[in-house]
Amino acid sequence: MSELRRDPVMGRWVIIAPERSLRPDQIMLPKQERQSGPCVFCGGQEALDPNELFAVRAPGTARNTPGWQVRVLPNKFPVLRIEGKLVREGVGMFDMMTGVGAHEVIVESPEHDLDLADLPEEQIAHVIRAYRERMNDLGGDDRFKYVLIFKNHGYLAGATLSHTHSQLIATPVTPKRVKEELIGAQRYYEFKRRCVFCDIIKQETRLTRERLVFENGMFAAISPFAARAPYEAWILPKQHSCDFVAITESECLGLAQVLKTTLLKLRGALNDPPFNFLIHTAPFRRPHPGYWSSIQHDFHWHLEIIPRLTRPAGFEEGSGFYINPVPPEEAAAVLAATPPGLDSAQ
Amino acid sequence: MSELRRDPVMGRWVIIAPERSLRPDQIMLPKQERQSGPCVFCGGQEALDPNELFAVRAPGTARNTPGWQVRVLPNKFPVLRIEGKLVREGVGMFDMMTGVGAHEVIVESPEHDLDLADLPEEQIAHVIRAYRERMNDLGGDDRFKYVLIFKNHGYLAGATLSHTHSQLIATPVTPKRVKEELIGAQRYYEFKRRCVFCDIIKQETRLTRERLVFENGMFAAISPFAARAPYEAWILPKQHSCDFVAITESECLGLAQVLKTTLLKLRGALNDPPFNFLIHTAPFRRPHPGYWSSIQHDFHWHLEIIPRLTRPAGFEEGSGFYINPVPPEEAAAVLAATPPGLDSAQ
Repeated sequence: MSELRRDPVMGRWVIIAPERSLRPDQIMLPKQERQSGPCVFCGGQEALDPNELFAVRAPGTARNTPGWQVRVLPNKFPVLRIEGKLVREGVGMFDMMTGVGAHEVIVESPEHDLDLADLPEEQIAHVIRAYRERMNDLGGDDRFKYVLIFKNHGYLAGATLSHTHSQLIATPVTPKRVKEELIGAQRYYEFKRRCVFCDIIKQETRLTRERLVFENGMFAAISPFAARAPYEAWILPKQHSCDFVAITESECLGLAQVLKTTLLKLRGALNDPPFNFLIHTAPFRRPHPGYWSSIQHDFHWHLEIIPRLTRPAGFEEGSGFYINPVPPEEAAAVLAATPPGLDSAQ
Repeated sequence: MSELRRDPVMGRWVIIAPERSLRPDQIMLPKQERQSGPCVFCGGQEALDPNELFAVRAPGTARNTPGWQVRVLPNKFPVLRIEGKLVREGVGMFDMMTGVGAHEVIVESPEHDLDLADLPEEQIAHVIRAYRERMNDLGGDDRFKYVLIFKNHGYLAGATLSHTHSQLIATPVTPKRVKEELIGAQRYYEFKRRCVFCDIIKQETRLTRERLVFENGMFAAISPFAARAPYEAWILPKQHSCDFVAITESECLGLAQVLKTTLLKLRGALNDPPFNFLIHTAPFRRPHPGYWSSIQHDFHWHLEIIPRLTRPAGFEEGSGFYINPVPPEEAAAVLAATPPGLDSAQ
């Protein structure tokens, strides 16, 4: 019998339909092909893109030259542009805004053939630091309300280049999904006087461990109770914090370990599936200091990993429901049992 | 320069990014393959699925025998089941409901090799009547709040069988997307004392025609101002009505003409693209008669067609923004200029 499950943050209902339940080998897709290198993101090709915005690099090496470990560049085909004023206009009965924002690429390694999951934890921590630096920097621009950091891995998850990279887009409005999480978390807090994410962490790491994928002292990776996609996983900091930018040095390393392990488990269990991940954090605090003080208590930043193993269809688009054929408890058991690190994307 | 456009109903922002603008031949996908017949949905195969719920059939022919033009069957792999009581339960801190609902298949023709767009208008009108009959019937079941009618065409749009069919799913909660439209339409009405959809129809058919794809006396097909996908089209009844079930006989024919023409134009312009369509109508009126009386004025049923030419990615999933590389004005111009009916899916 299938179940309707309610996401405790967003209030969104998900249909868990285990009658359609599938073993990992019944749901996984053919192995994704990699483009051969070198490409524009490779170490040694810096002259092809001399607009480095930030880099973690060896002491004494110059901007736009080799010697970097992580490098941030403007996206060459930005969906929103950094130049120009934010103008709001009416068009007949409709409303529009100029497409002002920022769209950047975080190149996670100078090596062409490694995936994020292949990198040493210290290197992944550098990637996380690059996220923090860029988010911090863009927060100084009054035109922006939010920065979404995300990664598309594999063609079916929207990636066009296979050299490992993430992206960020800064937007002049707070994205709808983020607003919905903020509102949901606020309502829960008003009712319970507790953070809903802290309650989820307690439920999943201490009261029951049936949806726990992996944890260390600082972070937990779980299959969310109302997972929208098969093998979806969320990584949450155990220490309450609404703001990703406030991540500490040791948390960068702690997150790197849990992220690497979770991605390796996904790869091992599901034949290197296409996936997206994204970070949800509090919006920039400028406009409403009072609002911010409430967000500090009720919101909790986190990273969501969504494998792309099913196809979108009319029901999902028209209803906003998600249909997930793999119960989160089953997905968590498979991932928890999969050893990290034996497989490789090569 | 890209633009942010606000959907006037949902309030959702869409990024129209014409720097990435693409001619139809740059965005279209390889031609989709059809499965060879006969299949379980074909005329003559009725013994394989003897659970006919409704059919439009020749006088004197018996249930579950040939002679039908449109036939409705229970889905063999339902995501929600008709049997059982609706039970709400807590699971630790979480909420769930039993997966009660209905999941049906509307087989649009006994012929294996025709698409919906190939059928005569009178036959398409029968399909629309079948939608109306089933929605009406399921409205008698107290457990259901809504029936979503939808069609998946092509593998990339989620179809698993290529014999032309649509589906419906009855749900025990009003879907989130429908709620958002209802709330948005209500807010607009409170502010303007007019139906937002009636205003859109006036804007697109009388004030400007730059987003008009096709119209007849009863229906208009438009590229919505804040289209979330390239070549998205909405079909709206010109006569205000919140309730698809109240569609008249002549409107069934009028809708059939506009739907067929629009689908043929999409096929001709875009090499038979994968698409979804869905009907948004008012939820069943039982629970709140007062609420219903407001919906009658402020909501307006419609059909949304969403071609699947782009891949979902992390930004869209994490933000709720859509990125559309084809401005709706460009899409409407291409579709308006494409002759319907020269191409065929064969």
